[in-house]
Amino acid sequence: MLVIITYDVNVTSQGGARRLRKVSKACQNYGQRVQNSVFECVLDSTQLKQLKIQLTEIIDQDKDSLRFYNLGKNYKTKVDHIGVNNSYDIDEPLIF
Amino acid sequence: MLVIITYDVNVTSQGGARRLRKVSKACQNYGQRVQNSVFECVLDSTQLKQLKIQLTEIIDQDKDSLRFYNLGKNYKTKVDHIGVNNSYDIDEPLIF
Repeated sequence: MLVIITYDVNVTSQGGARRLRKVSKACQNYGQRVQNSVFECVLDSTQLKQLKIQLTEIIDQDKDSLRFYNLGKNYKTKVDHIGVNNSYDIDEPLIF
Repeated sequence: MLVIITYDVNVTSQGGARRLRKVSKACQNYGQRVQNSVFECVLDSTQLKQLKIQLTEIIDQDKDSLRFYNLGKNYKTKVDHIGVNNSYDIDEPLIF
């Protein structure tokens, strides 16, 4: 299933910049960044649980915000993009 | 249907700050901001088309990025939030 993860980390608070880096790094292990604080991750339910636990441990719940949007398995028709595209099609093989 | 709108506007480019304000204002007419550049909008297909046209006219497609994620009608179980919550339940009446 495709899960969209969006986050707001309060970088003006103490340790905020470090939390932001760690949130982004954790998400990169599971999917692709499509905008500054938006990741698209194809996950099974176990992976989603793991990632939620990891991210919950990283953020300061009084200052930062995480949102998860589950688009399910048939997501191709549910995603639309307009403008500059800094990402790649998640199902296309990466060419190294 | 619930549509998540996320955007990255290049504020370092000329007119970027103005485009950012206009994108945010246009989205506010259709739904609620839940994070810095994330809106949740309950829309029918006509409204979604209208909003896409409006936003496409505002942004610079070479510099800015808009993404639309359609969660459909049964979205309550598809959205999860952890951390500080600066929003309200979209279906709850606003209390003024």
